[in-house]
Amino acid sequence: MNSPSAPASAPTDIDLLIQPEWIIPIEPAGVTLSGHALAVNNGEILALLPVGETLQRFQPRQTLNLPGQVLLPGLVNLHTHAAMSLLRGYADDLPLMRWLSERVWPAEAKHAGAEFVRAGTLLACAEMLRGGITTFNDMYFYPDAAAAAARQTGMRAVLGVVVIEFPTAYAVDAGDYLARGLAARDAFADDPLASFCLAPHAPYTVADKTFTQIATLAAQLEIPIHVHLHETRHEIEESIKQHGMRPIERLRRLGMLGPQLIAVHAVHLEAEEIDLLAHEGCHLAHCPTSNLKLGSGIAPMAVIQAHGVNFGLGTDGAASNNRLDLFQEMRHAALLGKGKSENAEVLDAHAILQAATLGGARALGLDERIGSLRPGKAADLCAVRLDEWQVQPCYDPASHLVYVAGREQVTHTWVAGNLVMHNGVPLQIKVSELLDIAGLWHNRLTS
Amino acid sequence: MNSPSAPASAPTDIDLLIQPEWIIPIEPAGVTLSGHALAVNNGEILALLPVGETLQRFQPRQTLNLPGQVLLPGLVNLHTHAAMSLLRGYADDLPLMRWLSERVWPAEAKHAGAEFVRAGTLLACAEMLRGGITTFNDMYFYPDAAAAAARQTGMRAVLGVVVIEFPTAYAVDAGDYLARGLAARDAFADDPLASFCLAPHAPYTVADKTFTQIATLAAQLEIPIHVHLHETRHEIEESIKQHGMRPIERLRRLGMLGPQLIAVHAVHLEAEEIDLLAHEGCHLAHCPTSNLKLGSGIAPMAVIQAHGVNFGLGTDGAASNNRLDLFQEMRHAALLGKGKSENAEVLDAHAILQAATLGGARALGLDERIGSLRPGKAADLCAVRLDEWQVQPCYDPASHLVYVAGREQVTHTWVAGNLVMHNGVPLQIKVSELLDIAGLWHNRLTS
Repeated sequence: MNSPSAPASAPTDIDLLIQPEWIIPIEPAGVTLSGHALAVNNGEILALLPVGETLQRFQPRQTLNLPGQVLLPGLVNLHTHAAMSLLRGYADDLPLMRWLSERVWPAEAKHAGAEFVRAGTLLACAEMLRGGITTFNDMYFYPDAAAAAARQTGMRAVLGVVVIEFPTAYAVDAGDYLARGLAARDAFADDPLASFCLAPHAPYTVADKTFTQIATLAAQLEIPIHVHLHETRHEIEESIKQHGMRPIERLRRLGMLGPQLIAVHAVHLEAEEIDLLAHEGCHLAHCPTSNLKLGSGIAPMAVIQAHGVNFGLGTDGAASNNRLDLFQEMRHAALLGKGKSENAEVLDAHAILQAATLGGARALGLDERIGSLRPGKAADLCAVRLDEWQVQPCYDPASHLVYVAGREQVTHTWVAGNLVMHNGVPLQIKVSELLDIAGLWHNRLTS
Repeated sequence: MNSPSAPASAPTDIDLLIQPEWIIPIEPAGVTLSGHALAVNNGEILALLPVGETLQRFQPRQTLNLPGQVLLPGLVNLHTHAAMSLLRGYADDLPLMRWLSERVWPAEAKHAGAEFVRAGTLLACAEMLRGGITTFNDMYFYPDAAAAAARQTGMRAVLGVVVIEFPTAYAVDAGDYLARGLAARDAFADDPLASFCLAPHAPYTVADKTFTQIATLAAQLEIPIHVHLHETRHEIEESIKQHGMRPIERLRRLGMLGPQLIAVHAVHLEAEEIDLLAHEGCHLAHCPTSNLKLGSGIAPMAVIQAHGVNFGLGTDGAASNNRLDLFQEMRHAALLGKGKSENAEVLDAHAILQAATLGGARALGLDERIGSLRPGKAADLCAVRLDEWQVQPCYDPASHLVYVAGREQVTHTWVAGNLVMHNGVPLQIKVSELLDIAGLWHNRLTS
């Protein structure tokens, strides 16, 4: 039973009934439903049921028929630096360390204040909502400014309490980063769409003492930790030189591994490291486009999948992608998984859709709230049209979402039952404001 | 001097002057122009010149201002099976040989007659034009039906005279395939937009005798040869078993290597094979998405680029991609080139744009006619808007085309000066006809 009301009783008033051509609920896995409808009330999913049963059960204030469209959970962007949308294409065709030290860090040192973060995150949130992303896991300076921007656009956000050892305009040392991030967490404690995680930047920017402190804090606060890990060979070689061991082993000794850990990138893994991550219940944020573009390599996702490690998909920042688009990441994850393993059967369309929704939600500890169309979860949803002539014929909507569709085919994005994007237009921020932001910062960054 | 008229003489009447925000002419290489215009007359490029000079030089019958847009040569799809658009997503998540023998070949045996080819090629041409592709190199049965479809949509086509040893509804043996294909070539001899190449399917479907005959014929007719080559490890292993050598060595002994050869896929190459292809002046058709999706692997494009082998980009058929979109292939070629070599500096944005235009044109022997914005070439062009809010800011149009833009941003596609696609609508075929085709064949293939 999806709802407490018995069939014989009077129909229940509800906010919204959505009747698309197909529904992919993610739970149960691998299923595409036809002839079903989703009932939404008070921002939550009330029921997923055959269309024929809706009349007796519900009296919707609004009914939305979506022929030729597929409805699925909103996508979860498991790793991004949202504010870096302002640096989209600012530096290309450079390896990670040169890209960081010659281009990104100098630009950030000069420009990345709270205003930059607010502006860049507004632009990023609008772009993500445009492509059906309803939740993002962020890692950047001024998480309070990012949280405010997410709230303005109506998006669900997990803000990283970023920690590095060196000083920036934002904070002076690791303790200061932590204090400021935790203060932002307190300030947004009442926001139902905002939550926080700890975000030590990477093994090469965070000291042992700080990692230990973060592990303790994560256990106390029961919040996830989000860290770049094994992104490049160079990172691993430097760790061996400096610490006498690979970063994962170092983090293991520091008590960082466990179900609270989201390892971002995890491109270069040995077999026993994959075993270890699986055994510890760690989650991975797979960012295929960024890993390719920075020349970092290709994560062994077929092996990771076979070991049952939970993973989600991330866009990384727009400076290393250059697009905050999970349709692109879904396609790349499916294609690269097959191409690297030379096995076309791995990472099929339904597995990829699961990673982009429930996989990300699980990693964030939000799977009781989002990630599938189970009654009681928040109505974080997107609808995608598959009826345009240039994507015909369509034999299987799940395959089309992963291998054919573009984000431009997303028609509706709802967060907690609020329609926040419709037909390419964000509804809580004006397009003119987005264009003004982009123009202003383009000029500042090039002057 | 771009034009014979001297500055002092009266302005020349011309058909069209295009004034976009930026022009990427491909020749000279690596250049993005601002403040320039392209003069088009009689279907050809007359001049590319600073906007300030246009008034004294030309009196255009039409002037098209395209602020926020970039103009570049039409894209060249160097390898496809256009008619297979009807099998888009018909079978996914299977390796090449099972995908062919269990799904594709049975469906083709039942359905792939001349009507299927005409219908599927119409749909494919419209899709390709929508994404700025102006020329495609096809390999399929009934090339006469494909040529007729291309003509209807206004697209430039190179039709493959497909040759395999086994009988189909189309032909009974290699000689019959050749005879039918060459008859189609004769039938379209007067079509300025159609040309033909020889298309022996693959080393595992064509006998030595036939390859020898095809090499001779290509030399006599001075037309290219287009063959699947070193697509999978399995193909190479079978060749060693059956012929005692790898396919490239076999083709070398049969006189097939040389500047007339377009090797399609070329995923698995040893160093000396890359040397050999470079030495012989062969061209490669790189199809990154298809190679990933079928689990074939990732071609060593950074090494191939370093050896100076000319290459273009191909979508392959929609059944193994599942999208006939060179924006996607450009992005995948750039990203995979970096990811596989773990070097972010290879295959930069301008190199990729060159491959998708002039690289393909050279492989087809059409580089005197298309592939760059040189005066005297055909006006095969596309315009792409880069001013939409979701792709802002834009620091470099070339980077944006490769790493950010989607085909939905293409606003105009011209072939030989004819506008054949505008704002997503094909101008020589009705959208209702395309939807009818897709619906009809969807029903036939699933019944």
